Amino acid sequence: MLERDLGRGILFTDQYQLTMAQLYHRMGLHERQARFDHFFRSYPAYNGHQAGYCVNAGLGWLLDWMSRSRFTEREIALLRGQTGRGGEPVFDEGFLGWLLENGSFDGIRMRSVPEGRVVHPGEPLNTVQGPLAMAQILETALLNQLNFQTLIATKTARIRQSCRGGLLLEFGARRAHDLGANAGARAAVIGGADFSSNVGISHMIGLDPKGTHAHSMVQAFMALGEGEIGAFRAYADVYPDDCLLLVDTVDTLESGVPNAIRVFEELRRRGHEPVGIRLDSGDLAYLSIRAAGMLDDAGFGDAKIVLSNQLDEMVIWQIHTQIREEAPDSGVDPDELIGRLVYGVGTRLITSRGDSALDGIYKLVAVQDDGGEWIPAIKLSETPEKVVNPGDKGLWRLYDERDRATADLVGVADERPDAEQTLHLHHPVKQNVLRTLDRDDLSAVEPLLAESKRAGSPQGEPGFLDPSLDDVRSRRDADLARLNSGVRRLVNPHRYHVSLTRRLWDLKQELIRSAGSGGPGG
Amino acid sequence: MLERDLGRGILFTDQYQLTMAQLYHRMGLHERQARFDHFFRSYPAYNGHQAGYCVNAGLGWLLDWMSRSRFTEREIALLRGQTGRGGEPVFDEGFLGWLLENGSFDGIRMRSVPEGRVVHPGEPLNTVQGPLAMAQILETALLNQLNFQTLIATKTARIRQSCRGGLLLEFGARRAHDLGANAGARAAVIGGADFSSNVGISHMIGLDPKGTHAHSMVQAFMALGEGEIGAFRAYADVYPDDCLLLVDTVDTLESGVPNAIRVFEELRRRGHEPVGIRLDSGDLAYLSIRAAGMLDDAGFGDAKIVLSNQLDEMVIWQIHTQIREEAPDSGVDPDELIGRLVYGVGTRLITSRGDSALDGIYKLVAVQDDGGEWIPAIKLSETPEKVVNPGDKGLWRLYDERDRATADLVGVADERPDAEQTLHLHHPVKQNVLRTLDRDDLSAVEPLLAESKRAGSPQGEPGFLDPSLDDVRSRRDADLARLNSGVRRLVNPHRYHVSLTRRLWDLKQELIRSAGSGGPGG
Repeated sequence: MLERDLGRGILFTDQYQLTMAQLYHRMGLHERQARFDHFFRSYPAYNGHQAGYCVNAGLGWLLDWMSRSRFTEREIALLRGQTGRGGEPVFDEGFLGWLLENGSFDGIRMRSVPEGRVVHPGEPLNTVQGPLAMAQILETALLNQLNFQTLIATKTARIRQSCRGGLLLEFGARRAHDLGANAGARAAVIGGADFSSNVGISHMIGLDPKGTHAHSMVQAFMALGEGEIGAFRAYADVYPDDCLLLVDTVDTLESGVPNAIRVFEELRRRGHEPVGIRLDSGDLAYLSIRAAGMLDDAGFGDAKIVLSNQLDEMVIWQIHTQIREEAPDSGVDPDELIGRLVYGVGTRLITSRGDSALDGIYKLVAVQDDGGEWIPAIKLSETPEKVVNPGDKGLWRLYDERDRATADLVGVADERPDAEQTLHLHHPVKQNVLRTLDRDDLSAVEPLLAESKRAGSPQGEPGFLDPSLDDVRSRRDADLARLNSGVRRLVNPHRYHVSLTRRLWDLKQELIRSAGSGGPGG
Repeated sequence: MLERDLGRGILFTDQYQLTMAQLYHRMGLHERQARFDHFFRSYPAYNGHQAGYCVNAGLGWLLDWMSRSRFTEREIALLRGQTGRGGEPVFDEGFLGWLLENGSFDGIRMRSVPEGRVVHPGEPLNTVQGPLAMAQILETALLNQLNFQTLIATKTARIRQSCRGGLLLEFGARRAHDLGANAGARAAVIGGADFSSNVGISHMIGLDPKGTHAHSMVQAFMALGEGEIGAFRAYADVYPDDCLLLVDTVDTLESGVPNAIRVFEELRRRGHEPVGIRLDSGDLAYLSIRAAGMLDDAGFGDAKIVLSNQLDEMVIWQIHTQIREEAPDSGVDPDELIGRLVYGVGTRLITSRGDSALDGIYKLVAVQDDGGEWIPAIKLSETPEKVVNPGDKGLWRLYDERDRATADLVGVADERPDAEQTLHLHHPVKQNVLRTLDRDDLSAVEPLLAESKRAGSPQGEPGFLDPSLDDVRSRRDADLARLNSGVRRLVNPHRYHVSLTRRLWDLKQELIRSAGSGGPGG
């Protein structure tokens, strides 16, 4: 087998990107400047529950990949060996020579929405400009990384919402899609996880990995005749200041919690306070109420209760609801109990259970003619929703008087909607749906796209290439706070408005009219 | 940011594996021999449609990862920097020194079901034996790789079933979970994809990557005034023997197919036969019927019709059904049309849409006491289904007189069910459900587990470490052919029987009884 890293470099692309690039080379179009837009078409819908927002993620790793990925002799040798149906080589030496010399993303310029920002369907998250061949080859890796990380950041933001302030830990490595475990853990942190159990990625992004022990440790001690209590005592001895015990290996309420309390009392006598317990099976709401009562009675009212086992935003919501209904009957204060809960979320976060892909796309929007003039490109398709907005884009967010985001506005790059007194917001598809806003009724008009990579440089711009996690998290928290609560809610959210400026609307209509004449031979 | 490869090596594990390993080190248990079983609990259920079988995959890459992954100074330095709640180091120098010296998987022995075999819930797919600390640290990476690749191989096998002999191409890189694109493409080929569009992984596994062109190429030519026909002509010029044209950029029936036929006629006059067309939007059944009729009328009855756009096993089944109903009205033979279809399947294959995770687990089943005696381990849990079968396992497949697989039998490693005249098959959970088979009524009793890695060697055994794709595919085809069609069907499959031998059943009952006494302090 060839080395595994081969699949992670510039050949992490689809074959048709290369066959098209060669065709452009043959036609002399390969270095023609072209523009592509990256956007997604719809929010993820988790078993029918469509999200009301997404959290943008993945760009930092994409820029890093672009700076490290280029064609070398190794890749060229493999392409040289590919043959077509008739046995002849697929790629000619002229093209391969050009690739070896020019096959990098140095010539690409990008403008991007920063990671951590709230984003919506139909708006350009990245605009890419560069030589047609390399801008085309970029497509697969760009979509792969941005689709997945935005998917996971979005799912995690929803889970964090339902945690209502409780610590959220990402536990999904064992069920993740191969190394998607790492990109997914990074995206989870962008979306709202406080920590991850995944050791390598935690070190890479500068967080402490989290975790204590599994059932297997208790089983091993039981098999060796030491029992659950022996396992707990051993754990407390080795980690006296970080003692968190998994209590459901034998029987949570009859064995696990009583044994944990005995060990916590022994710890306290030696001058250490326990961290808490973890519940990983059964009726988590019921068990947490009962366990909280037992811990309270024993004087461990501050001990945390970590919940895990197939959690997601709906399950956590249900647990809170059940606790509010049932805890008072057991003499447990529901708010205090919810305030001591911690959430370990694995499978359903790291695979975005219910909707495991974001439908991001990367579309050619303009290409230069041989005089250097930009010609908008358009794909006519069955549904008007799918007609791509043409030309070089700008994107702005409009905030109302309460500083809430009220709409995003897609326009032409050189427009200045912030300088206009009256803003016309066109529905992206429907002819007569138009909203007019007076600039005085808005607290701000904020541009969302900024240059993330300059043409001529292999590296992305600082702040985009390797953004600090603190910055990304601050952007996320600020954006979520400025969403209307109706847009943010988990079920049946309000639809956030993404509109077109009048100039972009007019340009789109003009193109649809002129392209409509392009039949056979047209 | 630290180098990305850090997250792919030995630190691709969960923190609790390391905290447990240190605890074992502190207690002098870290080199105690332990046994773990890997199995999954249930078939994937795609939006409620539960599969009737799985296809085993991932082992070759896992063994490769194990041979390359070990603790070095770099990892130790990172662990040394981790601190607990009180600010003290999490890991002590004694443990870190042991890890640096012994932190590899060389001491692990594995017995495994080969890749490509059909497998079922509750049966040991891998048994692992080795030093307790390192066998524990292996868990995360083992589950990650085997869960995901088996998930994708299984989904792909279903899709292949519904393709009914048509070529199946994996197109999912852009929607895959980061580098899960590569592992997923490999698993897809194990499960039933003929080729992948992913260039790097195709070269790694020795297949030709497949792909032709995208809408963007047609759009570029249209923007430059050459029209769709100009794009098609350019493509035919560059790839005269591999000419496959995407016909839905403008209008499939009014523009795309007529333009393709013009170009095919030009090609033929120059002595080349076209490959065919691709449809990527709209009503694929209707369009393929109409396109087939037009191609037939023009004398291109052999031209392939490639379908893509959100395909999966159900969508393809529906397309076939619609073609059978509607094609005759258009004078098109349904069987001939279905016989010329090719399927490009992306998102729904590579993310296993509908059920994006397999619930594989890795459970401690036995540990040696200080006299070297094996002690079975057991986890008592709320549901009897979850009680893990104890001890060192064997696994056999029983074939009936028609050479169909009739049941799998889990037993104790040193049993020889093939040598017994009467086989007692116990339901794994229900006390009184028992099936008895006479050896004379069986055509074969086949052991499924074989040694895949020896203790003392970093490398897996030949045939397991880097199996030939041809071997894996042959195993898959043979196993699928020997399944009853009721087990194989896509909706409401028969439940395949996985039973226990009498000896394993008795051992399990004995352990449940004895462990039931393990309360507080027990």
